[in-house]
Amino acid sequence: MTTTEAIKLLEKFRAGGVGRDDVLRAFQAAPVVDLGFAQVDTHRALRKGFPEVIFGAGKTPSQVVKIAAQLFAGEKRVLVTRVTPEHARSLRRHFKRAVYHELARCVTIENKPLPKRSGTIVVVCAGTSDLPVAEEAAITAEIMGNRVERVTDVGVAGVHRLFGRLETIQRATVIIVVAGMEGALPSVVGGLVSKPVIAVPTSVGYGANFGGLAPLLGMLNSCASGLTVVNIDNGFGAGYAASQINALAEGGG
Amino acid sequence: MTTTEAIKLLEKFRAGGVGRDDVLRAFQAAPVVDLGFAQVDTHRALRKGFPEVIFGAGKTPSQVVKIAAQLFAGEKRVLVTRVTPEHARSLRRHFKRAVYHELARCVTIENKPLPKRSGTIVVVCAGTSDLPVAEEAAITAEIMGNRVERVTDVGVAGVHRLFGRLETIQRATVIIVVAGMEGALPSVVGGLVSKPVIAVPTSVGYGANFGGLAPLLGMLNSCASGLTVVNIDNGFGAGYAASQINALAEGGG
Amino acid sequence: MTTTEAIKLLEKFRAGGVGRDDVLRAFQAAPVVDLGFAQVDTHRALRKGFPEVIFGAGKTPSQVVKIAAQLFAGEKRVLVTRVTPEHARSLRRHFKRAVYHELARCVTIENKPLPKRSGTIVVVCAGTSDLPVAEEAAITAEIMGNRVERVTDVGVAGVHRLFGRLETIQRATVIIVVAGMEGALPSVVGGLVSKPVIAVPTSVGYGANFGGLAPLLGMLNSCASGLTVVNIDNGFGAGYAASQINALAEGGG
Amino acid sequence: MTTTEAIKLLEKFRAGGVGRDDVLRAFQAAPVVDLGFAQVDTHRALRKGFPEVIFGAGKTPSQVVKIAAQLFAGEKRVLVTRVTPEHARSLRRHFKRAVYHELARCVTIENKPLPKRSGTIVVVCAGTSDLPVAEEAAITAEIMGNRVERVTDVGVAGVHRLFGRLETIQRATVIIVVAGMEGALPSVVGGLVSKPVIAVPTSVGYGANFGGLAPLLGMLNSCASGLTVVNIDNGFGAGYAASQINALAEGGG
Amino acid sequence: MTTTEAIKLLEKFRAGGVGRDDVLRAFQAAPVVDLGFAQVDTHRALRKGFPEVIFGAGKTPSQVVKIAAQLFAGEKRVLVTRVTPEHARSLRRHFKRAVYHELARCVTIENKPLPKRSGTIVVVCAGTSDLPVAEEAAITAEIMGNRVERVTDVGVAGVHRLFGRLETIQRATVIIVVAGMEGALPSVVGGLVSKPVIAVPTSVGYGANFGGLAPLLGMLNSCASGLTVVNIDNGFGAGYAASQINALAEGGG
Amino acid sequence: MTTTEAIKLLEKFRAGGVGRDDVLRAFQAAPVVDLGFAQVDTHRALRKGFPEVIFGAGKTPSQVVKIAAQLFAGEKRVLVTRVTPEHARSLRRHFKRAVYHELARCVTIENKPLPKRSGTIVVVCAGTSDLPVAEEAAITAEIMGNRVERVTDVGVAGVHRLFGRLETIQRATVIIVVAGMEGALPSVVGGLVSKPVIAVPTSVGYGANFGGLAPLLGMLNSCASGLTVVNIDNGFGAGYAASQINALAEGGG
Amino acid sequence: MTTTEAIKLLEKFRAGGVGRDDVLRAFQAAPVVDLGFAQVDTHRALRKGFPEVIFGAGKTPSQVVKIAAQLFAGEKRVLVTRVTPEHARSLRRHFKRAVYHELARCVTIENKPLPKRSGTIVVVCAGTSDLPVAEEAAITAEIMGNRVERVTDVGVAGVHRLFGRLETIQRATVIIVVAGMEGALPSVVGGLVSKPVIAVPTSVGYGANFGGLAPLLGMLNSCASGLTVVNIDNGFGAGYAASQINALAEGGG
Amino acid sequence: MTTTEAIKLLEKFRAGGVGRDDVLRAFQAAPVVDLGFAQVDTHRALRKGFPEVIFGAGKTPSQVVKIAAQLFAGEKRVLVTRVTPEHARSLRRHFKRAVYHELARCVTIENKPLPKRSGTIVVVCAGTSDLPVAEEAAITAEIMGNRVERVTDVGVAGVHRLFGRLETIQRATVIIVVAGMEGALPSVVGGLVSKPVIAVPTSVGYGANFGGLAPLLGMLNSCASGLTVVNIDNGFGAGYAASQINALAEGGG
Repeated sequence: MTTTEAIKLLEKFRAGGVGRDDVLRAFQAAPVVDLGFAQVDTHRALRKGFPEVIFGAGKTPSQVVKIAAQLFAGEKRVLVTRVTPEHARSLRRHFKRAVYHELARCVTIENKPLPKRSGTIVVVCAGTSDLPVAEEAAITAEIMGNRVERVTDVGVAGVHRLFGRLETIQRATVIIVVAGMEGALPSVVGGLVSKPVIAVPTSVGYGANFGGLAPLLGMLNSCASGLTVVNIDNGFGAGYAASQINALAEGGG
Repeated sequence: MTTTEAIKLLEKFRAGGVGRDDVLRAFQAAPVVDLGFAQVDTHRALRKGFPEVIFGAGKTPSQVVKIAAQLFAGEKRVLVTRVTPEHARSLRRHFKRAVYHELARCVTIENKPLPKRSGTIVVVCAGTSDLPVAEEAAITAEIMGNRVERVTDVGVAGVHRLFGRLETIQRATVIIVVAGMEGALPSVVGGLVSKPVIAVPTSVGYGANFGGLAPLLGMLNSCASGLTVVNIDNGFGAGYAASQINALAEGGG
Repeated sequence: MTTTEAIKLLEKFRAGGVGRDDVLRAFQAAPVVDLGFAQVDTHRALRKGFPEVIFGAGKTPSQVVKIAAQLFAGEKRVLVTRVTPEHARSLRRHFKRAVYHELARCVTIENKPLPKRSGTIVVVCAGTSDLPVAEEAAITAEIMGNRVERVTDVGVAGVHRLFGRLETIQRATVIIVVAGMEGALPSVVGGLVSKPVIAVPTSVGYGANFGGLAPLLGMLNSCASGLTVVNIDNGFGAGYAASQINALAEGGG
Repeated sequence: MTTTEAIKLLEKFRAGGVGRDDVLRAFQAAPVVDLGFAQVDTHRALRKGFPEVIFGAGKTPSQVVKIAAQLFAGEKRVLVTRVTPEHARSLRRHFKRAVYHELARCVTIENKPLPKRSGTIVVVCAGTSDLPVAEEAAITAEIMGNRVERVTDVGVAGVHRLFGRLETIQRATVIIVVAGMEGALPSVVGGLVSKPVIAVPTSVGYGANFGGLAPLLGMLNSCASGLTVVNIDNGFGAGYAASQINALAEGGG
Repeated sequence: MTTTEAIKLLEKFRAGGVGRDDVLRAFQAAPVVDLGFAQVDTHRALRKGFPEVIFGAGKTPSQVVKIAAQLFAGEKRVLVTRVTPEHARSLRRHFKRAVYHELARCVTIENKPLPKRSGTIVVVCAGTSDLPVAEEAAITAEIMGNRVERVTDVGVAGVHRLFGRLETIQRATVIIVVAGMEGALPSVVGGLVSKPVIAVPTSVGYGANFGGLAPLLGMLNSCASGLTVVNIDNGFGAGYAASQINALAEGGG
Repeated sequence: MTTTEAIKLLEKFRAGGVGRDDVLRAFQAAPVVDLGFAQVDTHRALRKGFPEVIFGAGKTPSQVVKIAAQLFAGEKRVLVTRVTPEHARSLRRHFKRAVYHELARCVTIENKPLPKRSGTIVVVCAGTSDLPVAEEAAITAEIMGNRVERVTDVGVAGVHRLFGRLETIQRATVIIVVAGMEGALPSVVGGLVSKPVIAVPTSVGYGANFGGLAPLLGMLNSCASGLTVVNIDNGFGAGYAASQINALAEGGG
Repeated sequence: MTTTEAIKLLEKFRAGGVGRDDVLRAFQAAPVVDLGFAQVDTHRALRKGFPEVIFGAGKTPSQVVKIAAQLFAGEKRVLVTRVTPEHARSLRRHFKRAVYHELARCVTIENKPLPKRSGTIVVVCAGTSDLPVAEEAAITAEIMGNRVERVTDVGVAGVHRLFGRLETIQRATVIIVVAGMEGALPSVVGGLVSKPVIAVPTSVGYGANFGGLAPLLGMLNSCASGLTVVNIDNGFGAGYAASQINALAEGGG
Repeated sequence: MTTTEAIKLLEKFRAGGVGRDDVLRAFQAAPVVDLGFAQVDTHRALRKGFPEVIFGAGKTPSQVVKIAAQLFAGEKRVLVTRVTPEHARSLRRHFKRAVYHELARCVTIENKPLPKRSGTIVVVCAGTSDLPVAEEAAITAEIMGNRVERVTDVGVAGVHRLFGRLETIQRATVIIVVAGMEGALPSVVGGLVSKPVIAVPTSVGYGANFGGLAPLLGMLNSCASGLTVVNIDNGFGAGYAASQINALAEGGG
């Protein structure tokens, strides 16, 4: 209920066109309607330039296609994460412009990419087994309108590989660091740069890794100031957060 | 040595106002002289505008005073976190300008505050018991040169309290959300704003809270896109990360 | 034998329509029928208000059919939970009136539904992946004689969706809230209503979700007063408890 | 603004005694009033007959006294849980009618008890060490207007003690079962009654009890249908939920 | 090395018949060699009347057959646990007298059963899903020469089913109680009998059961005095321990 | 309720001497009342020759004295475990014959010790820090009428110390093995004897010991057949179980 | 950047040959460039005589072949661990000299084995199910140029089997002990020898083994001085560490 | 009796300077001295190369003094770890040569230090709060006859500090790396050197550190080949293992 509508209601009540209890109920319900959450949502969409993202895991291919169709109709830009090859096949059959990013387990659909922001998001990846998570982060950031650079296979067991790419990393606006096993890489990177670092633990490892618990705890306990962490294997979340931060750097935050 | 000071020094050197060895010494100087590491540190300080922070827990008052004295000599700006009243007394005895932030368990020492950045960091706090962690985040962000607004006691069990402060929250450049118990507040806030949200779980709670594990897991699993998380009770880390992000928004990132 | 049937039997006995020994036999009928692999608790309807429910998981289709037959003979009302499609096929082959609720993974068999109680149980579901658990709760409550309303896909990341359904939720006698990931929805709902809220964590999520541990801990630590919790994915338990509570509201509790 | 006040305002408006904008402002007023949440809150208060409860732990005696004074001014009824003897002393110094329930670690303040509901809440307690938690549940339920009966020291290791009190338990409208160690009592009670059973695990035990984790897991995994569970040591939550349910039985639910 | 041998060695050394290093090595090994462990083993075999048991899991059918053949040659009595149908087929092809206990996942091979001891081991089983573990316990106890009685499907949610079998249970020399879910049954049984009770948690359950952790913790924390516990699903261990205890009762312990 | 009583009740109902609801309630309670649990308890007491044991932890000295007085009046034999020096002082002030076993943290009170059984319980203890738990086991077994021999400080890191005491251990009827740290001793002992071995993990250790979790898991996973385990630090439970087993060996089981 | 280079840079800057920003950047990046990590790497390779090892798990056969080809070109010696039969087939098709160690799940490729060091690494294995991990350790140590002796199936439940092989174990330079279940064997071995012992927990077991957590905790808490531990199932890591230690004994450490 | 002493004794015997019975008695001397509360392992030096070490925690000062006296009598070299100031005072009162290493929480007693081995053990320490554990490692290694160098405060958040000390680290025979928080330092060090690296996690940290679990898991999952790990805070164990390895390098292993 907008202010205009509220005024109308009160006038109608004074004029006898509506009962006291109806007015009362309208205002009592207000908290919700008053807030105009749809509008808020629209604002968000406007500002972020990106619609809801489809999480493919646990949905049937036809469910995914239906949701994607509905979103694409309104937004002309769709990201589906955690897709199986079956999801991908169904989406590509339905959407000519669907692109299947196999390693990232994502499908993107868009008529025209968003213009790129000036800042760069660097996705640093510790080992080759962490690549699917790193790619999910990269694809997410890219479709949201960011330039992304990838720095791959620079785990701390051979820390010189990291230093060889340091210049690239130090030029970034935001850095995403993806690592499994002991998850030490974000601490080392975080100690070398002053830009926001988002750490992504992966479930890569075995034994006392406990499905990514080891790197998750490592990253949360990092002695590098200012590190923030997302859920295990949550490349999407890291890419999304990095895009939100990069948008700030743009001045359009 | 700030960037501005470094530039001045180089210009002075070019102009002949200072000798080569003095420049060399300035860049090589201090914290780790023997190793030549001062440059790195200076580099970091330049970009971040803030020196090393002293973690008070587990250090004696006299150790803290000594480290603070050394840092203050070079940087004129010191933050000590996790201080006891004893730490605070010792620091105030030694430094006239030391301010003891009792609730935040921090001491700050500075001759002149840094100029404030234009963006605002909002620190949202779920319950009154979470305030020490929220204040640690706020004090950290403030001494690093950020404007901070506090929104307190807006836990999800009375979600209307949050909506009453929504405008403040939506005006922020970066939002820190501090919550114990089930840690649901960051998810709700994250769903209402498009700016970066940093979630801080606290150890407030009992029983199956397991010292903050419950809100930590809740925040890591949040369905709100783009949320990032720091360690349990790590207000400092959240304030530091928020400052790094806010610096980007400034254009000086 | 339900309480109603027991009352009828006693009245019939007083009226002379049935002999003393028949009454005696009915009440003394071993409270347990031994099927070799299972002791069917045929007294449970008298003791608990609803006959024993068959947990399908880990039983062969033929075992399930045998137990169902035994229960149906006495009670004319059977609920089988956690069924596979194989269980469902076997049950429908044997019982003409068997209904397979595929999403809920349940089969119900009854000649005539119980009369509905006046109060309403509302089942609120956070995300589409939580639907199987929510439906198990709904089907359980329905076969036990309750009106059920479903409110779906109202997770806290878009809290306005919840407010749009608030009127429905506030009209309920009992509310079941089903949520995976961080499990924050019950806290928000619990803060908005004064009726009993039963929270059901689901195993939906990944990474640090740990098979539903994250939402379970979240719900147990909820800051919303009066929330109670059942096991992860235990839609049946929530529906059963809600029915027990709704029966109290009926005055026939 | 209560419903009565809202009605008065609307009538005054219709009668011309107050302008449209004033009405609008009253309903929209302030962050909170704007949203109508105060009203919602009033509705809740009216229906539940009970104001916010003060959690004493982690608050100073003077903070507790201040919050209690504010609540008592409006509500004439205050419950403070998890109090230390210091909290209790301060409260009794300030409020003549404050009663310190030492075992329950609660203070209650009220001019006149609420009229009792007809149904009875039975609080069953496994061992003498679980009594503080059981009493917290009982005191909570009592100040909220419920009759409470206590059944104490009936742990499953001597299950006959439980059966000796079965009649009392079966007469209850709602049953709270408090148990530490292995937490098996709620399962046994839940199998014997048809009324809602709320299980409260306690941190009583040692070794592999892990601070109440053992009984918590036991209760969540109970094979007794319809059991719901609250957090470890959360007597207050159980008493609160039981009161909500008992209110339904009253017909005023 | 006996004292006599030690003296001989020293004299030989003095006489130059053995080197210094050899003497040194002999004395360094001494504490161990003195003990003659092979004999100990022989004693054990004589007293226990039962050879090594083969754990089938993780062994190939042909490995199992080879070990069984070697054991059978010497002992004429073999127990293989955790067998797959493939193991069973291979064993039955090779040993005419091999019996496949499908539910117990065991194969037994013996020419003539051991004479039965006079005491009885009762295996109590909470639910039908716990039967494989209960049967493993029963088959183990039987092949070791014990009479076994089974009491099935008497979980605590319908505690009257247990009481119907109480006489059988109280006649036992040793009682094994097998339960999954919350694992409360051993506590109830342990409170009703004075004989040794061995509790076996099973991995039956879901959600917060965590693969049997819930009943394991429940049993370890049991308030019934004198309960002992074996590993999750370890029916074999319980049957073995019960047989050792029953042997004592025989007087041949 | 016997059949005769049931018949009487039904006739009385038909005759109008009792209401329908009373009949209903009588039959609903039946399965339980039939069992006469007080008697069962008496049987237990008679057979076990030992009354309830008082767990001192969490009870006030005066509570302990009162319970002890009540038990001593009936039984002339009392065991109080987990006592503080204050408990001990109070008990000795009240009971002339109270003996305070300081290391075992127990008080025993008896006029005349029970006659000793012929078999021997050997309590094997890995390290000196485990002694309090071992002594609790020993004192429990002794007051219940068993001969106890102690074998101390024979941890596996110097396995020869164990072998030096092997003869004593092999003469036992039942063996209790108490160990903290990695808890390997019960496995080694269990491999050397054929008698029942009860393993007691202790909370002795640090770091990844996690309060006794390490030895608990070690003992539950022991490769020594027939080992059973009690809760961490539960010397009492082990002594009690050992006494139950030793009683069987006596022929009086 | 050496001091000489820094001086040159400053002079060049003063002379106008390089801009202010370039100087600034050079000092900011310096500490890294100074270290020359590629050289460090070359040193490492020279000293260790062994190239990078390929972890096969999670890589496709063709990826493994490509990496192996690249390594083999430079090093003439390749170790691939955690291979599937598919990996092995691909590697043998491509490399004539590839040897598939099926039990160890390894492939080795070398033209000529390294000369053997004089010391011996003994790999002690508790049970037959632990053999794959033990073999991975042995194969790793062998290809790195060490003599390896295997001592198999000497678990603590029959500790005499260990003593029968003690002489072999005591002759070793380094001992690797591989054990699952309770993981007690390294403690016993560690108490009997003075040489370095590396403990490898395996995931062999079930129930409360929790995928190797039980033996891991047991080994970390070992009371045998000087034991070190590697990750669950990490035979490769143990073999590698043992080789590093054995190289020291060689004098070429 | 050390090996050297044993050799001397045998030579003296061959030379006639000591009788056969004296030699016999020396070797047969019970390997264990019984102090009532402890079996002192007087044979350990022969078996393990260094006498038994006293773990002070949980022992009274007088118990520690008694054990130390017994060991010193035979060995002239005693190490007591985890001492309180009270332990230290008692030991220094009794032994003139006792040295209290306050930071390391150790007391050492020796008439004459062992001759130093040629190799060097480097103890690398991540942060100042980890120093007590690092010192325990260093003191242990020193009393066992090793040269020790300390490298302090080189955590990965400022990885340049580590590189400044790299030369020292690379010169070591064995490296001990002590780190709390995320425990990443051993991975980085392990990637830079070819010598054995022993990682020691400490309990330094807060929140999701869980008493050292985070660095423990990090170290176990390290991607640096050949890293081995000891228990949380187990500086002693690391120093002991390092000494065993350094002894090998000496050729006297």
